[in-house]
Amino acid sequence: MEKYLEFAKEVARGAGEITRKYFSGENGAGYKYDQTIVTKADTEINSYLIKRVRETFPDHAVDGEEEQFGSSPYVWVCDPVDGTAMYARHIPVSVFSLALVHDGKPIVGVIYDSFMDIMYWATLGGGAYRNGEPIRVNDLHFSNMRTIVNIDMWPDADYNLWGVFGELGKKTYAVGLGSIIHGAACVANGDFVAAIFPGTKHKNCDIAASKIIVEEAGGKVTDLFGNEQRYDCDIKGAIISNGTVHEEILSAVAEHIIINK
Amino acid sequence: MEKYLEFAKEVARGAGEITRKYFSGENGAGYKYDQTIVTKADTEINSYLIKRVRETFPDHAVDGEEEQFGSSPYVWVCDPVDGTAMYARHIPVSVFSLALVHDGKPIVGVIYDSFMDIMYWATLGGGAYRNGEPIRVNDLHFSNMRTIVNIDMWPDADYNLWGVFGELGKKTYAVGLGSIIHGAACVANGDFVAAIFPGTKHKNCDIAASKIIVEEAGGKVTDLFGNEQRYDCDIKGAIISNGTVHEEILSAVAEHIIINK
Repeated sequence: MEKYLEFAKEVARGAGEITRKYFSGENGAGYKYDQTIVTKADTEINSYLIKRVRETFPDHAVDGEEEQFGSSPYVWVCDPVDGTAMYARHIPVSVFSLALVHDGKPIVGVIYDSFMDIMYWATLGGGAYRNGEPIRVNDLHFSNMRTIVNIDMWPDADYNLWGVFGELGKKTYAVGLGSIIHGAACVANGDFVAAIFPGTKHKNCDIAASKIIVEEAGGKVTDLFGNEQRYDCDIKGAIISNGTVHEEILSAVAEHIIINK
Repeated sequence: MEKYLEFAKEVARGAGEITRKYFSGENGAGYKYDQTIVTKADTEINSYLIKRVRETFPDHAVDGEEEQFGSSPYVWVCDPVDGTAMYARHIPVSVFSLALVHDGKPIVGVIYDSFMDIMYWATLGGGAYRNGEPIRVNDLHFSNMRTIVNIDMWPDADYNLWGVFGELGKKTYAVGLGSIIHGAACVANGDFVAAIFPGTKHKNCDIAASKIIVEEAGGKVTDLFGNEQRYDCDIKGAIISNGTVHEEILSAVAEHIIINK
């Protein structure tokens, strides 16, 4: 497990260099078929990951948001730049995310905030860390401005969660950093109580590392309906929480979700 | 006007030093009577502003979010750290905001992002700038992931805008940086199409500088009902837009706002 973790951290640092390289100047932002944005950093990091995996673990596969490679029970699941819309606008909240998923289950996860040089990581059963210090979710119930939930919504999302956010917004402060994975890292770190995500198609890339890091920090990560899910295929959204507020979010989702597709 | 602008920029740089000083370590975060958060940086910047105004413009008043001083037709309206909840959690999105308001109308405005060292400013009739370069709002209509609206909501806000966000969220990507003023700067800069704010009591501190900077960049800033308002007293929320989407937001507000108080 240790060699996988060291590899993931090394790739994260390399990805961070690419992220910073294109951050201030022209970043080649363009739009994909699904109207989501992509930059030079996204594609270059994805290629870099595939190159590194092929060299180091040639029998492993890669499932990157921008490019995939191979087929294996061991899959490196990656979001090269989560929060690309913010990154393209030079707002420093995006993060890199990488998980090693075995038979659908994340066994190693790394999230790297290259702007602040903060590395979050976890291994299955080994706990969660932030720059070497153990981290733990908080144990707060929703409490007005004292707690924060990170929300995320876009027009084409398969689930419409605005009613859910409105319900939870009666009890807690809501932000939307524009990077669900940064929000998840804040949950793992005890800064936020929850992060809620409506993504489905290929969005395992967004949640795989968060799943293991938040749970190793004592929190809970399920799909929007409270179920466990695989992280080597499409997902049904995600509730990423400190555990304490998980049931309350599930109830709000059950009552207010609108399923578009 | 030039001397007011130079003074505002100088104070902004001083405030930035204080902001950065407390950012990484212990920032003394605590809660105010209204449950909102305050840090050492908020109070120290506010005191610094009052000291600087008393020295430089002794007949002017100061209306800071944390502390006020004097009475005058010329009021320096300031939010020392906008996005304190994020700042206290070490997320680098907070900004400093300062406007000189004359008879209720902002005539000079400065917003400073000390993490990225980006200064936005404007003077009445003199245009809007970002680190010396002229800036201009974009001219986009809402367009799926290509446009961004910045939202902001907390449980005790006098207006509940969740229905408004849900309506606009059908047409555009929504984020909530946790700093309405950072969102407004992104509107002025052409990165976002709009920012919407439900604040009222003493929240002129949040919007005064954004009012002049966004409008000098070609955008529009009104209260939530489309009216002009004074910036030396309480406000009725704010719609900060590129102008192009202003009417569409006003319609959504008119239809979906819930007035709590």
